[in-house]
This record gives sequence, structure tokens and C-alpha cells, in this order.
Amino acid sequence: MSRAFNFSAGPAALPEAVLRQVQSELLEYKNERASLMELSHRGQAFIDCAAQAERDLRDLMGISDDYAVLFLQGGATTLSALLPLNLARPEQTVDFVLTGHWGEKALENMKPSVNVNVAATAKEGSYRSIPARDSWQLTKDAAFLHYTPNETIHGVEFHDTPDVGDVPLVADFSSNILSRPVDVSKFGVIYAGAQKNLGPAGVTIVIVRKDLLGKHGRNLPPIFELQNQVKNDSMFNTPTTFSWYVIGLVLQWLKQQGGATAMEKQNAEKARLLYSAIDGSNGFYTNPIELHARSWMNVPFVMANADLDKAFLKESEAAGLLGLKGHRALGGMRASIYNAIPVKGVQALVDFMQDFAKRNG
Amino acid sequence: MSRAFNFSAGPAALPEAVLRQVQSELLEYKNERASLMELSHRGQAFIDCAAQAERDLRDLMGISDDYAVLFLQGGATTLSALLPLNLARPEQTVDFVLTGHWGEKALENMKPSVNVNVAATAKEGSYRSIPARDSWQLTKDAAFLHYTPNETIHGVEFHDTPDVGDVPLVADFSSNILSRPVDVSKFGVIYAGAQKNLGPAGVTIVIVRKDLLGKHGRNLPPIFELQNQVKNDSMFNTPTTFSWYVIGLVLQWLKQQGGATAMEKQNAEKARLLYSAIDGSNGFYTNPIELHARSWMNVPFVMANADLDKAFLKESEAAGLLGLKGHRALGGMRASIYNAIPVKGVQALVDFMQDFAKRNG
Repeated sequence: MSRAFNFSAGPAALPEAVLRQVQSELLEYKNERASLMELSHRGQAFIDCAAQAERDLRDLMGISDDYAVLFLQGGATTLSALLPLNLARPEQTVDFVLTGHWGEKALENMKPSVNVNVAATAKEGSYRSIPARDSWQLTKDAAFLHYTPNETIHGVEFHDTPDVGDVPLVADFSSNILSRPVDVSKFGVIYAGAQKNLGPAGVTIVIVRKDLLGKHGRNLPPIFELQNQVKNDSMFNTPTTFSWYVIGLVLQWLKQQGGATAMEKQNAEKARLLYSAIDGSNGFYTNPIELHARSWMNVPFVMANADLDKAFLKESEAAGLLGLKGHRALGGMRASIYNAIPVKGVQALVDFMQDFAKRNG
Repeated sequence: MSRAFNFSAGPAALPEAVLRQVQSELLEYKNERASLMELSHRGQAFIDCAAQAERDLRDLMGISDDYAVLFLQGGATTLSALLPLNLARPEQTVDFVLTGHWGEKALENMKPSVNVNVAATAKEGSYRSIPARDSWQLTKDAAFLHYTPNETIHGVEFHDTPDVGDVPLVADFSSNILSRPVDVSKFGVIYAGAQKNLGPAGVTIVIVRKDLLGKHGRNLPPIFELQNQVKNDSMFNTPTTFSWYVIGLVLQWLKQQGGATAMEKQNAEKARLLYSAIDGSNGFYTNPIELHARSWMNVPFVMANADLDKAFLKESEAAGLLGLKGHRALGGMRASIYNAIPVKGVQALVDFMQDFAKRNG
């Protein structure tokens, strides 16, 4: 065994205990005499597995029966295209608060279906902060307000849930779902691609307040109607069964770890360790994000001397620290430190960074 | 080990050799020090894995460079909603030839986006045959003609590719892709959910003639534009990496078996064995489909005495023959005998059926 610490932004590290369980039952799931990959989604074994994952997610996040919980295909990007079709009449407006790349993408995917209003954006400042709440230019009677609680590329995170009154909050939690407790009742929709904090790629979690659905007045293809997925327990068509199953194992692992509260404590500690190393490097490393908006999940950083990037990436990889190359839009480095990265993984990264700085400073 | 023969309609049986390879490299893929599930889709290891799967699919099906090959999310149902948006202007008409449930579903998902014309249907005869080609009422200048070469529920299969002149053929090959050689150049689009003949659920294969794309004149969300997936090698957003990888292993296994030609021979033999057992049972078992349209992949059958269904299913399962319950729309039994089911699996089923008939006849 020579598994390394994997700081990929997504798909991303999974708990080793989960991978070992998947491996042990890969050819025969429980008493089914077949791999889970081979089981019908209509059979009892998979239905039980899927329902357990939903129950565990409801438990972990405190999701009430006012909300449906879906395990869909298509990624958060597809969801962002489907959300205005399902939640807004064509003449309505959707408000956006933009704090990075993924918020922009969501806006592009909603624009053909609804009026859009950028209520606030931090683009002029190259997405280094979160616009103050009192500066937001909200639309009266907006269908919903969309924002991205954690921007994976820019490394900008909301550390509180904004208050926008009665307008439903719709939030892309792809990169920080279950990284800390969140009050679901404050949201209209929480959605998240699974491949960062929850499991392998191929499933998009959608937590949607049921009363928001079915009022759009549009003639949609049935497969675009989220209500059809609600009525069919996410099996209006064949779901990504294997990814759903692995997510279920990750959720069980999260419960064993102590749930969102335990994750919050650990993630705060990991973020403290890494930002302290950056801030304490006398400018060798820098993170550009304003303190109030620094992400606990994705930490981009650059070196004063960018010529060292190649050496940093080569040596860190050799040291068992993978996936540290920054997104091509920003360059430099990025460490994604999701739930499955333990404190000792971040400590190993910090140790390497300090040693590298000493040798090259 | 007590793996059984699995006749599920989908998700369905996979080659055991493929499952063993997945198991062996589950914690560490090649020299990556991480599971494939944990690897970034932007990293070289996954890009190589994905590109190899595309090359193998092109090889196995003889796909020319005039076609793009995509590995998307959403299932064939989502694709059927996206196809008219991508291939037809809003005022155009799409022709349908309906030979079962899935053709009907595709029509429902296309109807909100385009004019639809049922050029031919076997619905009046409860989908037991394929309407003769000279009875089809085609639309002049249709955007495309959609049909389902194999209907998974009804067990109806086209054994030849229909000729409709210059109108692009668009075909949902979910349940018979690579079950025999097909001349791809006769098609505008071949699409298929992977979870029957190709691998686990979560990937939809789309083989699309490139010149058909980008002429729809619609304002679509970027994620709905198939051209964006073509330009980005199916990575316009995060794909279902693990399913894609397993499909790649299945394609390599298919090559080792001798490809589509070898599968055709084996599938013909499996179908012959099973239909002979049904037809030779003196009415104990019957299959309702006209001889010219019987599927090689999905064989529904009923017993003259439906009271025996429960006993049949219970005893067959005990005998290591899984997933034989018929679709709820038709009742009775169904054996799906995709590529991964060996001749000896069908022989075991036939032996059981004959023994069961003897004991209960």
C-alpha cells in the first residue's frame, strides 16, 4: 500500500475505510450473489441501499419532511439549468450573488430560461471577497436567489447563511456540503455534485422544498420535471446506482465520525493550520482572499516566485501529496481539504511547504 | 464465491473478469496512489483511461471521424429530451416508429420541443411486431426519424437497419448496442444507456454525426448543447468517471472475446436456445412476439398458468438464476441475455425451465 494524500478539487479523496468496504463486496453485495453494479434499481436490495442513504443524509443534515431529497444525474451544472425551469415562471426574475466561477456558470445556464439580475458581485475585485449584505440589489418577488456558498476555484466561502427574507435561497453546495452544520430550513434548494465531499462523481444531491415545485407553468419534457423524480424516489429513470451506494457508505462513515459538528471542528482546524502556514511564510506563499471569505475547503495559494511552481508540484507529488496544481484560471497551487482529508494530511502538506520554503527562500 | 447468473434487464450482469480487475485496483489505480474514483477528470491518468475507452468503442463499432463519441450523464431518457433541442429547429417535425414502451417515452420527452409524427406504430397489436417498412407515413424533410432498435420491455428487435433515405436515423440502442455488428454510417445518432450491454449505470453513450449539430437556432443553456460536450471530450462538466472506466474494461473484454461479430454468433445461439425451449414447451411457456421481431436480448415469456409465477421466481432464484421477474407492465417473466451472459447461463435457465415444466405441467 502506498496511498497518498489527495488534494484534488473533485473527484476527490474518499475515506479509505469506505474504499475497503467497496472492495470487499465488489463481486458480491451482501447475499445478492451479484455485484451491486449488476443489481436492478427496482430490486429490493438496491431500494434498501438507496433509502438508507437518504435517511442518513436526512439525519446528518436535519432535513425535515417539507423537503424532498433526490439523487440525480447530470452534475450541479445540469441542475442549474433545470432549476429555473422547475422553480420560476418564464417572466420571473432570478437574483444572483456572484462570488466566483461557479456562480457565473450557474447564471449562464439559467439565463435562457428566466430573467436574471446580478444583485451583487465581487468580480471587480477578482472574487476575493463577499459583497456586504446591505449592498445587494434584490428584485422584489424574485423567483429565488442563487448563490454559491463555497467557490471551489476561487476559494471563497460564506461562513453564514444570508438572510433574504421570503425569497427562496437556492445554493450550490457542491464543495462544502456536510463540511459543517447548516440550517436547511433557511433554504429553498440545496444542491451539490457528490464528487467533492460525498462520494464518486455521477450523482447530484438535490434537497428541495416540495411546495416550490410544479408552479412553473411550462411545458417541459417529463425527464426535466423534478416533481417526477420526487414522485419516483429519484428513479424516474435509472440512477447512477454504484455512486449512490458509495455515497451511502460515506454518509455512514460521516455518522461514525460524529457528523457535521465533528467535521466542522476538524475542518476549522485544518483551515487554521494551512492558512497559518501561508500567512506565516513571510510572503513566500500568499492567499489572496479577504479573511472573512476564506474557504475552509479549497485553499488556493501562489508563490512570490512563480518559477518555483513546477518544482513545488513535482516534489510535493514525490512526497505523497497529490493534486495540488491550481485551476488553470488562477495558476499557482490549490489544496482541497474536504472531509475525507484528515488533519494529519494537512499537517503533512504544511510540513512540506515549510521545508520547501526553507530550501528555496 | 456463489455468484449467480443474473438476467436483470438493467443494471445487468457484467463480465466477472472485469469485476475482478476493478476489485484488484480499487484502492490504487495503476501507479496513481489513489482510487480511480478519487482521481481528477482533468488529470492525465483519467484522461488516458477515458480516451482509451473511446478508441476501443470506435474500433469495435467501426465509427468514423465524421462522428463524435460522447460519454454523458442523464440516461437515454435525458438524451431523448436533448436530441430534438440539438438536432431540430422548433418548427421542424420528428418522425417516430413505435415498437414499444421506450419509443413512447422518447416521444413524450421530445414532444414539448418539436412537432412529432407517429410514422408507424405497433401499439394496436400490443407491440408484438414491427410495422412493415412500406406502411410508414414519413414526413418530408423531417429533422430525423427516431426508433428503438430493441425494446427492452416488450422484447421486440429490429434485425435490420431501416432505410429512410436522407432523413437522419436516430436510434436508442440502450439494450442492444454491440450485441452484433451495425453499420454506424447509416445513422445520424446512436445513443445508449450503458447499464445493459456496456457497464454500470451512470453513462450514456452518444455517437453523433458532427454535421448535424449546431443548426437548431435555439437559445439553450450551455450544458444542454451537445456541441459543448463534443468540444470538451465529454468533460464540459465532471463526467461519471468510475462508470466510464468500467465501461472501458468491458470494451477491452469485448475485444478479447472477438468483438461484435463474436457476440452476434453467441447471442444468436443464446436466443435460439431460449426461444426453442419456450416454443417446444407445448404451451407451458409462451412468447407473444412475432418471429421476425423477437429480441435476442430481452425475452419475455408467460406461463399458461400464471398462478405458478411465484413458484417459478422463487425456485429459479434458489437455483442461481436471478432477475427473471417480468416488467410490471407485462407481468410474467423476462430473461435479459446481454453480452455478459454466457451460453452456459442460458443453458442453465433452459434446463431449469424444462425441469419446472415437467414438475408442474
